Amino acid sequence: MADPVTVQNVNGAAADDQDPPPSRLAHVVFTPSGKHGDFPVGTPILQAARTLGVDLDSVCGGRGICGRCQVVPGFGDFSKFKVRSQPDHLSAFSQVETRYKDKRGLKDGRRLGCSAVILGDLVVDVPEDSQVHKQVVRKRAEVRNIEIDPVVTLHYVEVRQPDMHHPSGDLERLEAALEEQWDIRVDRADLPVLQHLQKALRAGDWKVTAAVRNGHKLVHAWPGFHDRSFGCAVDIGSTTMSVHLTDLQSGEVVSSVGAMNPQIRFGEDLMSRVSYVMMNPGGDKEMTAAVRETLGFLILQATTEAGIDPTDVLELTLVGNPIMHHLMLGIDPTELGWAPFALATNEALRVWASQIGLEGKVNPGARAYFLPCVAGHVGADAAAVVLSEAPHLLDEVTLIVDVGTNAEIVLGNKERLLACSSPTGPALEGAQISAGQRAANGAIERVRIDPETLEPRFKVIGADLWSDEEGFDEAARRTGITGICGSGIIEVLAEMYLAGLIDEDGVIDGAMAARTERIVAEGRTFSYVLSRPAGGRDPEIRITQADVRAIQLAKAALYAGAQLLVDKFGREPDRVVLAGAFGSHIDAKYAMILGLVPDCHLDRVQSVGNAAGTGARIALLNRKARDWIRKTVRDIEKIETAVEPRFQEHFVGAMAFPHKTAPFPKLREAVTLPPRKQAAKAGNGDGEDGGRRRRRRRG
Amino acid sequence: MADPVTVQNVNGAAADDQDPPPSRLAHVVFTPSGKHGDFPVGTPILQAARTLGVDLDSVCGGRGICGRCQVVPGFGDFSKFKVRSQPDHLSAFSQVETRYKDKRGLKDGRRLGCSAVILGDLVVDVPEDSQVHKQVVRKRAEVRNIEIDPVVTLHYVEVRQPDMHHPSGDLERLEAALEEQWDIRVDRADLPVLQHLQKALRAGDWKVTAAVRNGHKLVHAWPGFHDRSFGCAVDIGSTTMSVHLTDLQSGEVVSSVGAMNPQIRFGEDLMSRVSYVMMNPGGDKEMTAAVRETLGFLILQATTEAGIDPTDVLELTLVGNPIMHHLMLGIDPTELGWAPFALATNEALRVWASQIGLEGKVNPGARAYFLPCVAGHVGADAAAVVLSEAPHLLDEVTLIVDVGTNAEIVLGNKERLLACSSPTGPALEGAQISAGQRAANGAIERVRIDPETLEPRFKVIGADLWSDEEGFDEAARRTGITGICGSGIIEVLAEMYLAGLIDEDGVIDGAMAARTERIVAEGRTFSYVLSRPAGGRDPEIRITQADVRAIQLAKAALYAGAQLLVDKFGREPDRVVLAGAFGSHIDAKYAMILGLVPDCHLDRVQSVGNAAGTGARIALLNRKARDWIRKTVRDIEKIETAVEPRFQEHFVGAMAFPHKTAPFPKLREAVTLPPRKQAAKAGNGDGEDGGRRRRRRRG
Repeated sequence: MADPVTVQNVNGAAADDQDPPPSRLAHVVFTPSGKHGDFPVGTPILQAARTLGVDLDSVCGGRGICGRCQVVPGFGDFSKFKVRSQPDHLSAFSQVETRYKDKRGLKDGRRLGCSAVILGDLVVDVPEDSQVHKQVVRKRAEVRNIEIDPVVTLHYVEVRQPDMHHPSGDLERLEAALEEQWDIRVDRADLPVLQHLQKALRAGDWKVTAAVRNGHKLVHAWPGFHDRSFGCAVDIGSTTMSVHLTDLQSGEVVSSVGAMNPQIRFGEDLMSRVSYVMMNPGGDKEMTAAVRETLGFLILQATTEAGIDPTDVLELTLVGNPIMHHLMLGIDPTELGWAPFALATNEALRVWASQIGLEGKVNPGARAYFLPCVAGHVGADAAAVVLSEAPHLLDEVTLIVDVGTNAEIVLGNKERLLACSSPTGPALEGAQISAGQRAANGAIERVRIDPETLEPRFKVIGADLWSDEEGFDEAARRTGITGICGSGIIEVLAEMYLAGLIDEDGVIDGAMAARTERIVAEGRTFSYVLSRPAGGRDPEIRITQADVRAIQLAKAALYAGAQLLVDKFGREPDRVVLAGAFGSHIDAKYAMILGLVPDCHLDRVQSVGNAAGTGARIALLNRKARDWIRKTVRDIEKIETAVEPRFQEHFVGAMAFPHKTAPFPKLREAVTLPPRKQAAKAGNGDGEDGGRRRRRRRG
Repeated sequence: MADPVTVQNVNGAAADDQDPPPSRLAHVVFTPSGKHGDFPVGTPILQAARTLGVDLDSVCGGRGICGRCQVVPGFGDFSKFKVRSQPDHLSAFSQVETRYKDKRGLKDGRRLGCSAVILGDLVVDVPEDSQVHKQVVRKRAEVRNIEIDPVVTLHYVEVRQPDMHHPSGDLERLEAALEEQWDIRVDRADLPVLQHLQKALRAGDWKVTAAVRNGHKLVHAWPGFHDRSFGCAVDIGSTTMSVHLTDLQSGEVVSSVGAMNPQIRFGEDLMSRVSYVMMNPGGDKEMTAAVRETLGFLILQATTEAGIDPTDVLELTLVGNPIMHHLMLGIDPTELGWAPFALATNEALRVWASQIGLEGKVNPGARAYFLPCVAGHVGADAAAVVLSEAPHLLDEVTLIVDVGTNAEIVLGNKERLLACSSPTGPALEGAQISAGQRAANGAIERVRIDPETLEPRFKVIGADLWSDEEGFDEAARRTGITGICGSGIIEVLAEMYLAGLIDEDGVIDGAMAARTERIVAEGRTFSYVLSRPAGGRDPEIRITQADVRAIQLAKAALYAGAQLLVDKFGREPDRVVLAGAFGSHIDAKYAMILGLVPDCHLDRVQSVGNAAGTGARIALLNRKARDWIRKTVRDIEKIETAVEPRFQEHFVGAMAFPHKTAPFPKLREAVTLPPRKQAAKAGNGDGEDGGRRRRRRRG
């Protein structure tokens, strides 16, 4: 904390408090903290707050510039505090305060804490927006709010000018100012800040705003007063990448942008990309360059959209699966492609943003913080999901499934956390599906099938109507009906299953062709025609037998991984969290009908969207969260599905809808499922399905 | 220190020391330290040495690979130690030791400390070359030896292989090995080492040699055993740059290379370069690029000459005047061009070598350490000179003059140190002289003039004979007689002065044309013809009146700066150290005759050559020296000549040879100087010379 007296002397922003008699003390109570104390008459509110450790913000150090220290004095008898707080117990508006009010506005009843001076007993409220460690409120009740405590802070200082008779460096005089005016001891300055420091000091007439990292490292200096600082929370998925440009002081996301991961051209799923590296020397460098270039582009897009100078971006946090994590860092991911799946490091990493190709895209002093990977197949994205969902703070058992091209699965409560990953492939994201596409305009995302007529109705992204509602054709003409996305494929399969068009083993029933012309033969199997082109532009959208098999393989892998953790933990989940880009759109009921995860009460299954991105944002805004997730990750029990014989067993049973043997009683309470087939002998059924799976994988 | 028992267990290099009875102890004395103690029979010598804190080297950690732990057992009755040391008190050669001896050789009487096991009382000598902190002996008696204690150390380790059942990062297992086998706690790993770590571990079959910086930062890992590590001591002069490639373990300079500073094309002296930046936006970037490119080239040349892989270069130390220091760091030096001459920083700096353009020239984890600048005109080169000469450890008062385009001057003893700089210009280095050239083959470097005949004789660099000796013409045909270098110009002027060809005010006496045809008229002034071309190739070499004036201006600036410090200190120097590339060749007597520095006994004036480069090398080899010079620099009193009225006064008096008013009694004891002119009235004389000076400076 700064010495408030020094700060006060430097700025002269206080009213005329010329040597008040030291004997006169006033009692001041701050709300909502309830912190209170006695102060000499003449003490500015900000100084009193700092002395008591009240959380009252300031960037300008009490000079009446930043307006961050606004307080609301309360007047009246506060018997609870035994204080009579009166208007004349506070100084009148000073010149500085009036200037601030005229220039930037000040709501009625508010005062600048650095200007308003204590003249008698007072009760002073610190509104939420004046607190340094304010909370970013999250929409869902069960998750914690984010306390703002960023790793980079801004500090306005006035620096002594150089004196030929007492030579010293500009940097050293800036450091002295930070120590005198803010009690900050800088022990290290980046070369880029040094390269620009002399010009900044002179341009700002010896007043600059310093950006300080972790309370001791000088990373930037702007001429004059500056109160904008931003960070990027980055989620590098195998298929899509996203950047959330976030205000480091308010916590607000000012711009979110996303793009396809350009590595897709080297292989759709992770293993095919690792194979590419193994087959093509230098292939890792190509992929590193591609993903870094896209990240740079996304940051440029985000800053441009939000009208933010790249120099104001001071910090990044990055999450991704281990292969994306390694490739972004320029580490050859080959070792992650075969047993024993050794990570280069399982610890969090901090590098210069320029070391990952972001020179010129962000502040030259910006750092990139990579959350730790959990294990060779369980990435920093899983760590971020844990940070976002905090399952280990609860008694109840949470199952978190982060659906991506590789699903990462976490199960546990405050006693134990287990994690594994499962190679679902990209089918659940709409890839490897005949009419599959990304969740973009024109994609079918919701499907209902009338069990009587077997006729479908659906919703298309970009058109807010069901296909049987009036105006749909008009709306769909604008978007087109171009394909089906991940949530759409889940719904159509579940509805087909409920309608009897697919049996529990995933076979599209050719006999149903007698009841609807939408069932059509294709060679030896059948398809269901979901959408026929209205105009000439759109394709016919069919669900083929191969599509069903692709989803079966994916969901069986997901289920098997989750079930393996349930076995290890010894308790079923009390709640299920579906995360991932895909997870934000999926309807929990349909996911459960297909058996993507072990049985759970439907009202305890939530789709939370990009929890990994949220975790990255938490790590961006709160530095303590970084230590916390590092420690947590160390304690997670890592399960390697490849060496667990039961994984294969679970996989085979999970090929069926919702499952070959698991009864799913909680699901059946909410949904009437078609009657089960006569249970085949486990041995036979398993063998048959397993064999099919292996053949397909080779193909 | 490593736990020796662990080390022993890991390597199995010891003889068959199967559970010796714990009761049998032997007394072992190490020389030259005299450290001694009792150890169980069966303890290897290396382990005993480590337990006692005896300085015995090892890179391989006691595995019989590196051969650094060689010791010499002494046998006989050592009554001083009360020890009878016998051959059978030491184990026979083990298999490991024999293998080492066969492969790499082992001098008679030497044993490997890690293999030789204590069987009874012993006296064991640790030879100089087996000590970690060995001394690099310097040739001159009055300077301290350099203790080797480099910032980067090498450690061979065996790393656990990854285990799918207990997933962990390769880095974390390497860190665990360093802690277990060397007691080193790495808390940070560079990104470049992480990018290559997985391949190194596998290529070395899980044995690697780690380079650790400051005992806690992992900067590189080589597959298998590796015991080569080098650093570069870099001196960036305004005119020349030099790189001394140094073995970080032996302290030996394995290659020294130099080149012209390419910034010369932007201006010969510092101020003209700063002017270039002021006049040409982006000029600083051009100069930064030029000097960085040359440094990269010099390092490439040095490593190529010495046959060293650039990856083995792990550290650089850099010194230079403030403007060179700033430009190398990419800091615009404009502020150093005008009062108050503000440095960007006056502290030491550590940056990545890649941040100063050395990517690919050295190890990707190499750091560059810039010694601190003393003040706006007194650079890191002056700090390095202080580190090399250590004037503040002595009672006697040392004057150090580092002659370069800008002279940096330090005066003091253990009570106080003062420093200033003086703008001598490049004349003393042979520039701005009509026949001036660099000290290279063909340059006249020594001159004598017969006071009777007024005929000169001289020596030329590359030909080891005086010009009047037999064989000189032959030798000079090979080198040519191409010009005159700095030491040559000093000598010829001093000899001309002694011979009466120049008067004390620096006027070449036209009347002497009557006595020698070598005095020739050029307009209104006269010149002395030092060399007439023998063949057709060489130029005529004349000393012109303008040459004399250039040297007068330079030497007056030097003298005035030194005298200013003498005034401030209140004591004359007991000894004078002439440093700088120029300083290595200058004859102290002639420097004194011309009056380059205040009076001193000739036998206490030394030319020490590139002391700044030596200081850089000390900082490279000994990390404690870095802290030491940082503290020392803070305590140096900085004198700014520009604001000292007496500087101008001293300057004017110092235009004369050796000085207009100072009597130089110590010089006169050793040399008979021409009689002084009738002392002109100080006012007149000063005014005249001063006026001339100003006119010339403008011209």
